[in-house]
Amino acid sequence: MSSSFGRLFVVTTFGESHGPGVGVVVDGMPPGIAVDAADIQHQLDRRRPGQSALTTQRSETDRVEILSGVFDGVTLGTPIAMLVRNTDARSQDYDKLKDVFRPGHADYVYMQKYGVRDHRGGGRSSGRETVGRVAAGALARAALTTVGVSIVGGTVQVGDTKALKRDWEIAESNPVRCPDATAAEAMAAVILRARDQKDSVGGVVEVVARGVPAGWGDPTMAKLDALLGAAMLSIPATKGVEIGGGFGMCALAGSQTNDVFDGEKYLSNFAGGIAGGISNGAEVVVRVAVRPATSIGKPQTAATAEGGTTTIAIEGRHDPCICPRVVPVAESMMAITLADVWLRQRALRGRAM
Amino acid sequence: MSSSFGRLFVVTTFGESHGPGVGVVVDGMPPGIAVDAADIQHQLDRRRPGQSALTTQRSETDRVEILSGVFDGVTLGTPIAMLVRNTDARSQDYDKLKDVFRPGHADYVYMQKYGVRDHRGGGRSSGRETVGRVAAGALARAALTTVGVSIVGGTVQVGDTKALKRDWEIAESNPVRCPDATAAEAMAAVILRARDQKDSVGGVVEVVARGVPAGWGDPTMAKLDALLGAAMLSIPATKGVEIGGGFGMCALAGSQTNDVFDGEKYLSNFAGGIAGGISNGAEVVVRVAVRPATSIGKPQTAATAEGGTTTIAIEGRHDPCICPRVVPVAESMMAITLADVWLRQRALRGRAM
Amino acid sequence: MSSSFGRLFVVTTFGESHGPGVGVVVDGMPPGIAVDAADIQHQLDRRRPGQSALTTQRSETDRVEILSGVFDGVTLGTPIAMLVRNTDARSQDYDKLKDVFRPGHADYVYMQKYGVRDHRGGGRSSGRETVGRVAAGALARAALTTVGVSIVGGTVQVGDTKALKRDWEIAESNPVRCPDATAAEAMAAVILRARDQKDSVGGVVEVVARGVPAGWGDPTMAKLDALLGAAMLSIPATKGVEIGGGFGMCALAGSQTNDVFDGEKYLSNFAGGIAGGISNGAEVVVRVAVRPATSIGKPQTAATAEGGTTTIAIEGRHDPCICPRVVPVAESMMAITLADVWLRQRALRGRAM
Amino acid sequence: MSSSFGRLFVVTTFGESHGPGVGVVVDGMPPGIAVDAADIQHQLDRRRPGQSALTTQRSETDRVEILSGVFDGVTLGTPIAMLVRNTDARSQDYDKLKDVFRPGHADYVYMQKYGVRDHRGGGRSSGRETVGRVAAGALARAALTTVGVSIVGGTVQVGDTKALKRDWEIAESNPVRCPDATAAEAMAAVILRARDQKDSVGGVVEVVARGVPAGWGDPTMAKLDALLGAAMLSIPATKGVEIGGGFGMCALAGSQTNDVFDGEKYLSNFAGGIAGGISNGAEVVVRVAVRPATSIGKPQTAATAEGGTTTIAIEGRHDPCICPRVVPVAESMMAITLADVWLRQRALRGRAM
Repeated sequence: MSSSFGRLFVVTTFGESHGPGVGVVVDGMPPGIAVDAADIQHQLDRRRPGQSALTTQRSETDRVEILSGVFDGVTLGTPIAMLVRNTDARSQDYDKLKDVFRPGHADYVYMQKYGVRDHRGGGRSSGRETVGRVAAGALARAALTTVGVSIVGGTVQVGDTKALKRDWEIAESNPVRCPDATAAEAMAAVILRARDQKDSVGGVVEVVARGVPAGWGDPTMAKLDALLGAAMLSIPATKGVEIGGGFGMCALAGSQTNDVFDGEKYLSNFAGGIAGGISNGAEVVVRVAVRPATSIGKPQTAATAEGGTTTIAIEGRHDPCICPRVVPVAESMMAITLADVWLRQRALRGRAM
Repeated sequence: MSSSFGRLFVVTTFGESHGPGVGVVVDGMPPGIAVDAADIQHQLDRRRPGQSALTTQRSETDRVEILSGVFDGVTLGTPIAMLVRNTDARSQDYDKLKDVFRPGHADYVYMQKYGVRDHRGGGRSSGRETVGRVAAGALARAALTTVGVSIVGGTVQVGDTKALKRDWEIAESNPVRCPDATAAEAMAAVILRARDQKDSVGGVVEVVARGVPAGWGDPTMAKLDALLGAAMLSIPATKGVEIGGGFGMCALAGSQTNDVFDGEKYLSNFAGGIAGGISNGAEVVVRVAVRPATSIGKPQTAATAEGGTTTIAIEGRHDPCICPRVVPVAESMMAITLADVWLRQRALRGRAM
Repeated sequence: MSSSFGRLFVVTTFGESHGPGVGVVVDGMPPGIAVDAADIQHQLDRRRPGQSALTTQRSETDRVEILSGVFDGVTLGTPIAMLVRNTDARSQDYDKLKDVFRPGHADYVYMQKYGVRDHRGGGRSSGRETVGRVAAGALARAALTTVGVSIVGGTVQVGDTKALKRDWEIAESNPVRCPDATAAEAMAAVILRARDQKDSVGGVVEVVARGVPAGWGDPTMAKLDALLGAAMLSIPATKGVEIGGGFGMCALAGSQTNDVFDGEKYLSNFAGGIAGGISNGAEVVVRVAVRPATSIGKPQTAATAEGGTTTIAIEGRHDPCICPRVVPVAESMMAITLADVWLRQRALRGRAM
Repeated sequence: MSSSFGRLFVVTTFGESHGPGVGVVVDGMPPGIAVDAADIQHQLDRRRPGQSALTTQRSETDRVEILSGVFDGVTLGTPIAMLVRNTDARSQDYDKLKDVFRPGHADYVYMQKYGVRDHRGGGRSSGRETVGRVAAGALARAALTTVGVSIVGGTVQVGDTKALKRDWEIAESNPVRCPDATAAEAMAAVILRARDQKDSVGGVVEVVARGVPAGWGDPTMAKLDALLGAAMLSIPATKGVEIGGGFGMCALAGSQTNDVFDGEKYLSNFAGGIAGGISNGAEVVVRVAVRPATSIGKPQTAATAEGGTTTIAIEGRHDPCICPRVVPVAESMMAITLADVWLRQRALRGRAM
């Protein structure tokens, strides 16, 4: 269960970064929905490394194979398994790390948790695990499209450079995936500078769902905020999440942050589209804090398995800023979460939906 | 399932704010653990309204009754049900709100979701639902104590006043529950000013777990970050959560934020005690953004059930700042989450734990 | 989770037989369904001891209190908690059994499992735990009624006396709850003879669901057969279950047991209304093997906590045949199971249901 | 979730009989357990068709590929995905069945449930789905071996021929997998006669777990009986299950069926190793009713998609008696169930296990 997300639209990923492959099983996809393998591949291509100078140059081809649950281009209502083979796994890069715990990585805690690990890369902690999420996200998007829900996203902060606009339609046209063309250039410069310094830099990714009707979610333990929070914080390298006004609301007054519904629309969206855990019909807005990538070329002190320390410089090919590649993952997790609450609401009230 | 939290330490709350009572069932509490009803009552008293001038003056007595699962002061390993009767439910305060949707409240989305609601208060959306969480949290704390884990917490920001210290031992001695005595006074002033203006103010609550060994949590969907994120964002009025360095890391470099383990201890704690989703042995640190309370006395425009608008001033007795009362709830949700991952780890490796 | 049944219509019972009370939380009941407390009480009264000379003479009144989730006689879509206080708990009957493990009972395994137990009665293993199931079953029935599904049941075998007819409408008019008036008298005689001999006797209970449309259930792990099997075998004292033709089909040929659908109806019902795990539109028919009650007045050899043996005669008031009281419990578990698969199907295809 | 079994040892199968392949993901396998791919393959070979004249002559090679979770022959504690490609899928056999609903099959209910189906074979209802279960079962067995639990099984009834002995060690040496050499020959004759008549015959499979300590299972909803019942009734073509004395106990007296524990051992095993839902230390004994295979060569009346009827003779290659091939599947489901309750018990009491 530790590798599953969702209750009705259940996404289970599998695979180590340096094993035979990575993949996913989606159980709960409704039947009769048209699924185009090219759409899934398109989302995987967005996540793939090597897309620009800003990301790692590993050349993973990431071809997805649908193993079940789709027949004649239509979902059967049965589990959809998808597999992506690992091809460019340069395991030798990791040989020298067998007995060293990389700072910020999960190497040490893996040994504490499991007592054993595949030292060739991060195993399940690798960003490569998100391949399955993105493939599942493409299915979730196809399902949500049938009820008019769509999702956009982008990088809205890199280092201390922030996007001032939300022109979502242009986000995909720059390598940072920033919805503000001017900020995008500044962000790219920040990322390249980090790369040149063999260092990394953090940022913020924002994802937005449009068309979510009022009434999805739950009032207590399964608040839509809570589910989205779990979804986002399950993405590697994320350390914070906020809905709508988020942390910025703390310094304001209730008379400022209560979104007034005038009978037709909300006059503000501090709630981020979710009131009392339930969607209120406005855009659902979520921001995710992405920490600087832990794999850096700069020499660092590291603990060894023997209990001492050493100095390492991580030489493999790594991302100086993960944000651009987190965007499709965060969108996918939002889609998966919304598909799940949509089905929950169908269970609760059936016809009404 | 919408009212349950956890997989092995399963907490299910029930009850509307103006029905017969609120309560909780905890399924998965290990057997043989000493449970003192006074400890549970103590935590409920911390959550209770009417503790100081800073909180609502509703005089709920909130006496807990243990209905099952405890015999001779020891847990039986069976479900523990606990009930708190509602006594001070001034339903008449709500009569005039029957056909008005309060801004920022869940009134409107409730109708969209359920098609029916108990208009006398927020129903399940009321903060009163957290009574069950706090009672369950007291059990989780008792369980965690057996393995050396303890939890502290407090208010670290109100409006734009921030705590500069973390003297956890003094947090309980001021009504704000602030771990910085100087900041506490400033915060209290901010809250009273909001109250006098018939308004409310937001803030940030921080909770910290000590003694969590390395190895709890999971590397993918069930990252400890994700579970804690869901736990916190399931608390009413929360709109953001961050682990360790959180959003503050976005503007930093990887060489700054990689916590170096020197073989004995971590030299920093940007990870907030969680690496790759798994506890690393450092303190687990979580901060929660608490929005300004939505119930305010100031006149506001509100939508009506008929589709028009009206002006309302919410007259009942409400909290000008929820933070002090969120503290025991956030601590409880952290305890519940950690009890769950502890049991998961026992399932995974048994003896080793 | 060990005390919960169902995924969408989630029933969680709590309470020991000799603690403050027993009860249940039902999470997932759809909103807007009329619920009459008298209907719930009626089902509890059917389960109650002391109904006739055939059952134990304990005089439990079993008054149910609805604690949440219902307002103005209509479900709110939120958890419905129900409580029945324990009143006639003659704990002293059990004092002499503190260090003796009753044959056939769970006393010994409880100690092995939990390391601690409430020796005053069977704790959670007591038939009294089924109070919560019957209360939840009454809700499930109310939900199913809205889609035209109803449930009947009765005792169809006691000792080796079998019912030859299925006149369900008369089952409730005899104390055995047998749908065959002639067999009912013979069965009563068998039960009284067992009682006079301070012994007990087993039997078979059959439950039937009418009006279940084709399409409920799942083809693999969650076959409707499997869910019903789990439901029935979770009832105390049951040791077998069969669907439709059951064990009797083993000796037949496929050409005999393939139910032919002639375009309008099935010409036989060996499948018991379930083909490939999915309801086929015929009546769903389930039979449950009920073992002879383990509590008997006859002297028996019993193991002691110290590791030796002793002779005991269990003196309390017990049922010589549990079947009549299992009937409402089995009906309830069938209703709970069907409510769950109904909601699952709504989640899967929504509008279509 | 509909394709998953278990809570802690979670087995999720995927794949249609005539799609690219079938497989399974096992999430919750403890780390550090030696896994030999040859052992998994051995179990799959036992399930495979074409083993003798008694089973279908389809020549599936069923080579398993482990995609994740195992490194250097040892489990990593992460999800283990396994894939078996479909190779001998003679889809053309099914073309004529596109618009005909085979009697006893799930064709009709599939359309009612999903509104769409892969008509080339039974889809997920095909016995081929059990490939994943057997692969998962091999892992469960490996896990259970570490705590001394082993599982045996065999065919104990075919038609009305019953095994009189339980020589488990000889069961695998005859094609019926019968633990009674004499009965085995008679059973084989019954099966061949059914085959010659283009018909099929039912039977009973028994599985036994040895070495299960007292204390596994739960007293209420998750009784070990209930979990095993669900496990068995989730196997295709099963219509009944009994534990220990099962239906045979109904005609007996409590003084006969109460298993007496004399301080060292049980003097009988009517409970089938489970008292009050919890293992009692005796062998766990389960019997499963296997209906006659629904695919028969004899002409039968069948409903058509257009609402009329037609006559069909199912020509493909099918099993005249499924029992021999159900044996490894039933053993696997028992192993999966016990692995799950073992981990549950570790979660509950950890060290003690």
